Amino acid sequence: MRRPGLQIAVVGDARGDEILADRAEGVGRAIARAGAVLLCGGGGGVMTAAARGASEAGGLVVGILPGTDADGSPPNAHVELPIFTGMGQARNLVLVLSAAAVVAVGGGWGTLSEIALALKHGIPVVTLGSWKLDRPDGAPEPRLIAASSPEDAVRRALEAARGGILEQRRETRE
Amino acid sequence: MRRPGLQIAVVGDARGDEILADRAEGVGRAIARAGAVLLCGGGGGVMTAAARGASEAGGLVVGILPGTDADGSPPNAHVELPIFTGMGQARNLVLVLSAAAVVAVGGGWGTLSEIALALKHGIPVVTLGSWKLDRPDGAPEPRLIAASSPEDAVRRALEAARGGILEQRRETRE
Amino acid sequence: MRRPGLQIAVVGDARGDEILADRAEGVGRAIARAGAVLLCGGGGGVMTAAARGASEAGGLVVGILPGTDADGSPPNAHVELPIFTGMGQARNLVLVLSAAAVVAVGGGWGTLSEIALALKHGIPVVTLGSWKLDRPDGAPEPRLIAASSPEDAVRRALEAARGGILEQRRETRE
Amino acid sequence: MRRPGLQIAVVGDARGDEILADRAEGVGRAIARAGAVLLCGGGGGVMTAAARGASEAGGLVVGILPGTDADGSPPNAHVELPIFTGMGQARNLVLVLSAAAVVAVGGGWGTLSEIALALKHGIPVVTLGSWKLDRPDGAPEPRLIAASSPEDAVRRALEAARGGILEQRRETRE
Repeated sequence: MRRPGLQIAVVGDARGDEILADRAEGVGRAIARAGAVLLCGGGGGVMTAAARGASEAGGLVVGILPGTDADGSPPNAHVELPIFTGMGQARNLVLVLSAAAVVAVGGGWGTLSEIALALKHGIPVVTLGSWKLDRPDGAPEPRLIAASSPEDAVRRALEAARGGILEQRRETRE
Repeated sequence: MRRPGLQIAVVGDARGDEILADRAEGVGRAIARAGAVLLCGGGGGVMTAAARGASEAGGLVVGILPGTDADGSPPNAHVELPIFTGMGQARNLVLVLSAAAVVAVGGGWGTLSEIALALKHGIPVVTLGSWKLDRPDGAPEPRLIAASSPEDAVRRALEAARGGILEQRRETRE
Repeated sequence: MRRPGLQIAVVGDARGDEILADRAEGVGRAIARAGAVLLCGGGGGVMTAAARGASEAGGLVVGILPGTDADGSPPNAHVELPIFTGMGQARNLVLVLSAAAVVAVGGGWGTLSEIALALKHGIPVVTLGSWKLDRPDGAPEPRLIAASSPEDAVRRALEAARGGILEQRRETRE
Repeated sequence: MRRPGLQIAVVGDARGDEILADRAEGVGRAIARAGAVLLCGGGGGVMTAAARGASEAGGLVVGILPGTDADGSPPNAHVELPIFTGMGQARNLVLVLSAAAVVAVGGGWGTLSEIALALKHGIPVVTLGSWKLDRPDGAPEPRLIAASSPEDAVRRALEAARGGILEQRRETRE
């Protein structure tokens, strides 16, 4: 089996209306078409829609789940590779750390924790109709990027992910 | 030893200027004077200032640390009871879940993750010169409360914590 | 409030017969009498018995719980300071890392995971009617110590904990 | 991409002699030939050998790593899908919960914690030259199975994994 390629996480609410679901599905599709692996929380709402988009476009879908097994945390139908953490919302950290970039579609407090944990670790976050955030100290955050469409979001996420990798390599060399 | 009482978490940046440190120390002092236990991340900046405030006022200070031991995660000088999680930023979840309410003073992405994780679990958060947050879906969040001073912050946190406990008890009875 | 002193964890089964409970209660009592803080998993069986022993002897009892709150993970009646991890059995790691030494009384697979995680991190473990373990590679493990009574177990745990601290200090100085 | 199939974890020491490495490589190869996905800790020793065996036989290798990124926790060369937990040894829990069965080859305290955490959650464990364990209470453990060769280990792991799935289904139906 070939190396599955860049890993991109999609985060968003387990509930979510049709507009959000359409966007998330578009994001999932674009991730798969780019040859990247989709990571998600494995649950419903935005997570299901993104997973469906990726899966139907032939991509690999990894679900990072909060429960200890499929009884407690049933993965949605499009998750091919379920990772059961047994750690509830601490799984949010595992999800973002395993991604080269994160795309946030809509979302509540769980999604906000994922955005924050990603940026805390220097992982770029692309938002699509999601949280707008201004640091209390006014510091700019170049790794937090707003997108205008699902395709734009994935394009920017891949760019940031590759930038991150290039940047990291440069640092390692010096 | 008597029951240590309500547990209140103070979260905020490991760095942080003098204004923030003064506020955090005031918050710690007010928590101890109210007979509550201070929980914090155990590190520097806001965490040290809050811990000093509580400790000097005779309160118990618990530090929930990211590392596996004192070599990797030295607790600040005011932590009496260090809890080493060995789980990095996943300790943010442990910190907020163990609190009846959270007070956020200033803060960066780690602090934002703590605010978000607390609200995700229904734990009230009082902010003092910290993140201003509007949900993308426009839903109100009655558990997110802005305060005007350290004393006001702790008064509101205790009120919210007791309200939560009363509310919880009511639910349990029905 | 004065510094609570050395932290000793007691681990063992949530179920457990009267003989185990008597031993665990004796261990808890001896920990409190030595001025140390008792850490436990906060649940039933050995955890309740150890907590009761420490609490009745005037000691501070910290419970490191698996659930996100008291509804999901009710602390036993002797826990004064509950830490909710929300991470299920990953809390076993938090429990042992926060201790200067671990005392294991009886126990099943969860207890074995705590013994193993402690030794993995170089934290001494004293067993009392618990697992007997021989490494597959035949290597000796000086930090795994068998005790003959509750008092003997706590004496050895304190010795090992202080030894560890002395040893660590010596290393730091050189 | 097709559904990757059953997930089997291989656990064992990061160090480990040639005999262990040969066995682990055989286990990895047999897992891949059976069409299953190999999960491992992503590091050296037994983990590298098992991953190489699976990868050379065309299987998918998932690494569940302790660090926050590839700098802190470099995945071995055969890991195609790295999951960074940022939670140190708490990743042992994620590793075993994500597997339908665990194969333990040799191993130290970390491996023992994985065996114990798996059995705590009812996940079958097949041992190959690894820990021999007798519960202090003398209770039998039908899910702990000793194997005589790499091929035998994987055959028994798959059998136990499928048995577990069948058994679970039966429970769900009733």
